[in-house]
Amino acid sequence: MRFWGIEVKPGKPYPYHADNVQGTLHVTQATLGLGSSTEKSILQCSTGRKNPVFLCSLLPNKTEACPLNLEFDEDDLVSFSVIGPRSIHLSGFFEAADGDELRDDYEY
Amino acid sequence: MRFWGIEVKPGKPYPYHADNVQGTLHVTQATLGLGSSTEKSILQCSTGRKNPVFLCSLLPNKTEACPLNLEFDEDDLVSFSVIGPRSIHLSGFFEAADGDELRDDYEY
Amino acid sequence: MRFWGIEVKPGKPYPYHADNVQGTLHVTQATLGLGSSTEKSILQCSTGRKNPVFLCSLLPNKTEACPLNLEFDEDDLVSFSVIGPRSIHLSGFFEAADGDELRDDYEY
Amino acid sequence: MRFWGIEVKPGKPYPYHADNVQGTLHVTQATLGLGSSTEKSILQCSTGRKNPVFLCSLLPNKTEACPLNLEFDEDDLVSFSVIGPRSIHLSGFFEAADGDELRDDYEY
Amino acid sequence: MRFWGIEVKPGKPYPYHADNVQGTLHVTQATLGLGSSTEKSILQCSTGRKNPVFLCSLLPNKTEACPLNLEFDEDDLVSFSVIGPRSIHLSGFFEAADGDELRDDYEY
Repeated sequence: MRFWGIEVKPGKPYPYHADNVQGTLHVTQATLGLGSSTEKSILQCSTGRKNPVFLCSLLPNKTEACPLNLEFDEDDLVSFSVIGPRSIHLSGFFEAADGDELRDDYEY
Repeated sequence: MRFWGIEVKPGKPYPYHADNVQGTLHVTQATLGLGSSTEKSILQCSTGRKNPVFLCSLLPNKTEACPLNLEFDEDDLVSFSVIGPRSIHLSGFFEAADGDELRDDYEY
Repeated sequence: MRFWGIEVKPGKPYPYHADNVQGTLHVTQATLGLGSSTEKSILQCSTGRKNPVFLCSLLPNKTEACPLNLEFDEDDLVSFSVIGPRSIHLSGFFEAADGDELRDDYEY
Repeated sequence: MRFWGIEVKPGKPYPYHADNVQGTLHVTQATLGLGSSTEKSILQCSTGRKNPVFLCSLLPNKTEACPLNLEFDEDDLVSFSVIGPRSIHLSGFFEAADGDELRDDYEY
Repeated sequence: MRFWGIEVKPGKPYPYHADNVQGTLHVTQATLGLGSSTEKSILQCSTGRKNPVFLCSLLPNKTEACPLNLEFDEDDLVSFSVIGPRSIHLSGFFEAADGDELRDDYEY
């Protein structure tokens, strides 16, 4: 499986740590989830070493999707979270470090 | 043939599985299809293992096209579908794994 | 010459076939041409095997440029055309397959 | 650690110089920080050799995030700064030149 | 120096020809310069062989920045210019063809 996708919900930080897989995760798109609130929702990334960094800001009925180009390795320990009322869907793909054999273990 | 493109219509999920071809499909653009509805249309990707993930959200007369950067391998078994009233055109290119000989077999 | 650019005019499909050149054409940007019409213009790509696929949709005074990421090989035989009142400029670059010597022959 | 992110605050130029690390920094996204001002904020890059160059311009409630594709090497000595009232978050990733051993030294 | 940036001013075409450097210039972003005019500004590229090609179109207070993905080689002889009232800043990076030694000569 090369495709990767998650839904990050408000109030539920989503940790990412690829314990058992060698490779690089490419996060390439953020899309606003369903909901009626017209307040903006911000995606941020925490690393535990300093303040979270904003990755994008989605505005209902104006900008509901945003391309990203982020890469994470097996030694990255990060957490995605949302500031705002609506969830944000992230998608991208996983590039295994050496060959195909590890991809199926990757339960995203 | 390196260019790749499909139209995903509302109510007709489009499965993708490259059975006979070794290589990587790059899906790089989504564009809103024709129609008069001003409701938004969302592109989503299902993998059969959990909830679908939103890939982009297109707003008539505001944001009718959206760059993507998704990759799919021969062991990806996914389905694209649309939430909303209008179709979404996807385009990109196919990168064969080892040489040219397989490309012509790839009937997208 | 690595830079590549064309103008696709309404009613004049622009065929692309790199007969004498080995390499990959990267089409990376679409920009709305001059004109006073405020109707949208859609760029589409035809391959002769099925319906054309929309590549982007440009909205005057709202979204007049759109990044693309498309690749075409020497065995691609496609045609770009515009639905709508205004021309669309395409730009990108050409990557020769093996060295520099063929680039100068490439009269775009 | 492959992920990289900083917050550039108005009035506080952020110098970048990767003294002890061999590799390439990819800066791939800019996102508007929190605040109530509706004035635009511009990100610029100074190199000390001529006038600063604008990298993007973020408009509150219209365009609050912008993809970038910039690369910096260990011999780049630049400074990011903001013109305008709100901070700009930058994110991306660091690609070490030869292997993993230097990544942990990279205190971004 | 890997970072590259220029300001293209209205009425002052900016020629690009990397005489003494082997490598590829990646132009990846266009950002509207300062000014009070609300007319749009278009970036175009001339090659001397046919009509200029539009690379992007920037709309004040709507779309003031635009990602690009253009590459230029040492045998490209092009000129950037602006149609409209405000300058356009271009940024990107330079990739030397064979090693580091030529980079410092590159006075952008």
